[in-house]
Amino acid sequence: MPGGTTVVSRRRLLGTAGAAGAGALVVGAGAGAAGAAAVRGRPEPLTSLGSASAPFHGAHQAGIVQPAQAHGHLAAFDLAPGTDRRAAAALLRRWSAIAADMMAGRQAQDDTSGVALDAGPSSLTVTFGFGRSFFDRTGLADKRPAALEPLPAFTGDALDARRSEGDLWVQIGADDALVAFHALRLLQKKAGDTARLRWQMNGFNRTPGATAHPMTGRNLMGQIDGTNNPKPSDADFADRVFVPEDHKGADAWMAGGSYAVVRRIRMLLDTWDHLSLERQEKVIGRRQSDGAPLSGGTETTPVDLDKVDRDGALAIAGDAHIRVASPATNRGAAMLRRAFSYHDGFRDDGAPDAGLLFIAWQADPMKGFVPVQRKLDRGDGLSRFLRHEASGLYAVPGGCEKGEYVGQRLLED
Amino acid sequence: MPGGTTVVSRRRLLGTAGAAGAGALVVGAGAGAAGAAAVRGRPEPLTSLGSASAPFHGAHQAGIVQPAQAHGHLAAFDLAPGTDRRAAAALLRRWSAIAADMMAGRQAQDDTSGVALDAGPSSLTVTFGFGRSFFDRTGLADKRPAALEPLPAFTGDALDARRSEGDLWVQIGADDALVAFHALRLLQKKAGDTARLRWQMNGFNRTPGATAHPMTGRNLMGQIDGTNNPKPSDADFADRVFVPEDHKGADAWMAGGSYAVVRRIRMLLDTWDHLSLERQEKVIGRRQSDGAPLSGGTETTPVDLDKVDRDGALAIAGDAHIRVASPATNRGAAMLRRAFSYHDGFRDDGAPDAGLLFIAWQADPMKGFVPVQRKLDRGDGLSRFLRHEASGLYAVPGGCEKGEYVGQRLLED
Ligand code: HEM
Ligand code: HEM
Repeated sequence: MPGGTTVVSRRRLLGTAGAAGAGALVVGAGAGAAGAAAVRGRPEPLTSLGSASAPFHGAHQAGIVQPAQAHGHLAAFDLAPGTDRRAAAALLRRWSAIAADMMAGRQAQDDTSGVALDAGPSSLTVTFGFGRSFFDRTGLADKRPAALEPLPAFTGDALDARRSEGDLWVQIGADDALVAFHALRLLQKKAGDTARLRWQMNGFNRTPGATAHPMTGRNLMGQIDGTNNPKPSDADFADRVFVPEDHKGADAWMAGGSYAVVRRIRMLLDTWDHLSLERQEKVIGRRQSDGAPLSGGTETTPVDLDKVDRDGALAIAGDAHIRVASPATNRGAAMLRRAFSYHDGFRDDGAPDAGLLFIAWQADPMKGFVPVQRKLDRGDGLSRFLRHEASGLYAVPGGCEKGEYVGQRLLED
Repeated sequence: MPGGTTVVSRRRLLGTAGAAGAGALVVGAGAGAAGAAAVRGRPEPLTSLGSASAPFHGAHQAGIVQPAQAHGHLAAFDLAPGTDRRAAAALLRRWSAIAADMMAGRQAQDDTSGVALDAGPSSLTVTFGFGRSFFDRTGLADKRPAALEPLPAFTGDALDARRSEGDLWVQIGADDALVAFHALRLLQKKAGDTARLRWQMNGFNRTPGATAHPMTGRNLMGQIDGTNNPKPSDADFADRVFVPEDHKGADAWMAGGSYAVVRRIRMLLDTWDHLSLERQEKVIGRRQSDGAPLSGGTETTPVDLDKVDRDGALAIAGDAHIRVASPATNRGAAMLRRAFSYHDGFRDDGAPDAGLLFIAWQADPMKGFVPVQRKLDRGDGLSRFLRHEASGLYAVPGGCEKGEYVGQRLLED
């Protein structure tokens, strides 16, 4: 798999941290009550969590095929008025250099903040995308992909424009919260006068090691979520997720790239929780305990949409989420879902402000998110427990090689 | 150490999860793109993270001496109008039962939410406390500890009353975000009509395993934070942190308990980041890289407040945080700091809404937080980079034995 996650050796991790002061790793025992108890309670070594890293350079940007990390930050930036193509190019060059350093566990130039010191890269990925408005601002409208046409309105939408779209999009993920925060903060600072934060959201997933075996994660409705994603081993995986390497036309610069649809989807958990477990499982079409489809088998058994129960009813109901969303009922439309949960406290009525930072990756939104969401909007039993509160669509260019920066083929042509 | 963290065996973890459906743990390989890649990238087994647990029952509540976890939720609840002592007692009984189950990795009764399924207890702790207002509402004013006198006002305060105080306080910590969220949500639901959420905050610390060796954590200013905490091995640790077991008087029910001072302290990171590393280190009195005091040595070398540099200046400046906060300059006043960082996005001016959910534990706030904060308020070089935005003071009763609930000695006497 291109762009997979690798584990850097402990030696390399030590070498890296050594640059920031060799003493930093020699504290260990006796380092305060917390430190001391940690040694007993949470036994060493768990170092693979910190030392795992994803490569910044390659055919595709990192943060698409890698497993979603325990911590995520999504952020959109708007270019400052008057920012031209050259200034935007300089920004992407700066950002790429910082991302490459941080993802390798190196301290970026001029970074004295210290927040991520001692920690390994912790599977950090940083992914950059361009929103529709980017192209007008930088005089590049003729290179704007047709795929960046605004998403249609859906009846379930209650979108907040201030938390939607934006000229530039950054997706950050890491298995350590301080590594993730540090990346976000450093990129924000290095945006300087070129770009200003438009919106920012925090998300999370289960910590690696929280379960006895690696397994598909759960969302805040308690469902195993991600099972029927396209798999890198599928013959058509690359076709579905990435713009072909030989892509031609005004947006040839998108070769190897992907389109990200970002939806902040609040879960109406108070309403949801009133359903019985049986009803909840019918709404999705899978069992809560192990994620097995209601048509039988285990989590990974292919879904049988035609299966009929003894009483003559469809095993997977007509409005079950996995029926309505399935490629089989959407002329093959598919996307790679790589989400983070979010929880920003509680609303005034006591309901959790929580749900999914849904991110769908596809070679073409018109063959992925758009038709599927259109169908879900009309016929999905799950939709009455959801509110789409923010939305973004971004062109995420392919990866870059050493010495290059992300977006270079667009910005320097 | 009483109440330390233990590691439940994988077998027990499997047995536990089995109750929720034996199939749940047999998915493993092929569980979607994310699952599959996780196997390669973040190698098995990291199970000790999930399987670590803290005991609910004991002389002290959990969540005080245990290392602060990767995820924290703080929440305050207000009793519904007209709630009497009996209703409050029933609530604490319900909450205690749920906490005991969840901390042991068992599914609580009637819990069908599924969010924490498959995960081990992940060092979950749940800690309950009573605010000053609790005692009037329940007709227990005569049992209110004198130690719950309102905290004095400090010049650095910019407190938001809606995010301060409250009748009941709950502190949740776990190394997995879904386990922590699940605990918060279940306790909120089981509050039923008895109590209503007043405020809630999310915090985090480094994930165990992010560093090559266990070590003291860092805060969002990048400092190693927690070094000079009282240690459980100190002869006077229990005296400083816990109300004596033989405590007499109207608040004898607080024997084995502790007082928690909670402060939401925003860091003015934009201002802070303008200081040179050297200035930053002077403000604290310790080196950023390894936390060594500026008087010399390594992180754990005792601080020498009298040390004078070659140029005749104090090695630890007169307004250095560790000088002004030190027990040595506060007639021995000391507290156990067990904090979470927080980051709730960015403010309109682009500054991070981030800092420390500072929690100080002590047998008596007048010999812990209050005198030290009074001194910091006047003379701490760090204070101009901080804003105290919310505050709470809670009486956290001792732990309970099996069959009892937290607060029983107060509520059923
Ligand atoms: C908070 C909102 C959502 C929740 C809680 C949710 C939950 C789930 C769950 C539990 C599954 C079954 C396991 C799996 O295969 O991953 C699933 C499948 C799926 N979902 Fe969603 N989903 C949400 C929103 C969406 C949206 C907005 C889309 C696309 C527009 C979508 C597309 C899909 C697809 C394509 C599948 C796989 C169906 C199949 O082929 O079996 N979901 N979702
Ligand atoms: C965001 C606010 C704060 C930050 C960033 C901060 C940071 C630090 C750091 C880096 C240290 C040195 C390492 C250590 O011994 O833990 C320290 C020590 C200490 N801090 Fe703070 N602190 C903050 C607020 C407070 C407050 C509000 C109090 C109490 C009122 C406090 C009391 C102490 C004490 C008692 C020490 C140990 C001093 C010694 O004996 O060496 N801190 N703090």
